[in-house]
Amino acid sequence: MDPEIKKKTLRLLTYGLYVLTAADGDDVAAGTVNWLSQASLTPPLVMVGVKADSRLHQLIERSHGFAVNILAADQKDVASAFFRPSQVEGNRINGYPFERGAETGAPLLLDLPAWFEARITDAVSRGDHTIFVAEVINAGLRNPDVRPLVMWETGWFYGG
Amino acid sequence: MDPEIKKKTLRLLTYGLYVLTAADGDDVAAGTVNWLSQASLTPPLVMVGVKADSRLHQLIERSHGFAVNILAADQKDVASAFFRPSQVEGNRINGYPFERGAETGAPLLLDLPAWFEARITDAVSRGDHTIFVAEVINAGLRNPDVRPLVMWETGWFYGG
Repeated sequence: MDPEIKKKTLRLLTYGLYVLTAADGDDVAAGTVNWLSQASLTPPLVMVGVKADSRLHQLIERSHGFAVNILAADQKDVASAFFRPSQVEGNRINGYPFERGAETGAPLLLDLPAWFEARITDAVSRGDHTIFVAEVINAGLRNPDVRPLVMWETGWFYGG
Repeated sequence: MDPEIKKKTLRLLTYGLYVLTAADGDDVAAGTVNWLSQASLTPPLVMVGVKADSRLHQLIERSHGFAVNILAADQKDVASAFFRPSQVEGNRINGYPFERGAETGAPLLLDLPAWFEARITDAVSRGDHTIFVAEVINAGLRNPDVRPLVMWETGWFYGG
């Protein structure tokens, strides 16, 4: 296999962008991710790839849950803000206000149009990212008419 | 959790569209899927949700591998053709010419701009779809300048 062809081919996969969050008590983390998909209708499962050496990964492992905050098409700047390490000041994380999810305690970002909470059912630790499989147990829609951010529109790549 | 809110929220996730194929000897299957993402850089892993009661699922389980054929933006009609049960006639499947992947024997569709083959490393059988985790072992790019098909452009949904 030619690594350059492999890279270019995998970079043709289509993604959205999401702020993934988790909390263990006062310990809170958030990060922008794209390797996320639904994985079952009944029960409603999702699967997400999370960098194995990240603090977000630690908190997901400790709390067995996470929240996914869906970015709107005009929120590329918010996606950027969560490439940085998480910093909490009062009810803001990396500058953006949040509330705690009722099920997981994970931050739900008030400026983002939709979110869901999920509880881990399975994990696959084979590569440099862990695949967490989780059941969706709570969801909220702040703006039903939103157009979500598609990664192609950002010019960014993660993968390959 | 309000099931309607849950459905609408999960339908805000962004997907591409792909023709997933598998083969066990002369037995061949193909189907259009969208629940697919990369899941590790090193090794290069992908994860895909495959309907548990499908023939494609049977063939992936039996052969421990699959191929992903990436659809171009103007190939919505090809995506449609692989919602139907797989029918092979000579070197065509559902009307589209293919060759066999060197690593998995799975059909590689000649009209599609890029493909990769992958070998199963793990599976999670919890929901109505199985999550197959697989290592990318072969890849090909027929058209490096392609713009891939984004599911939003089709008006279709699968998930929620």
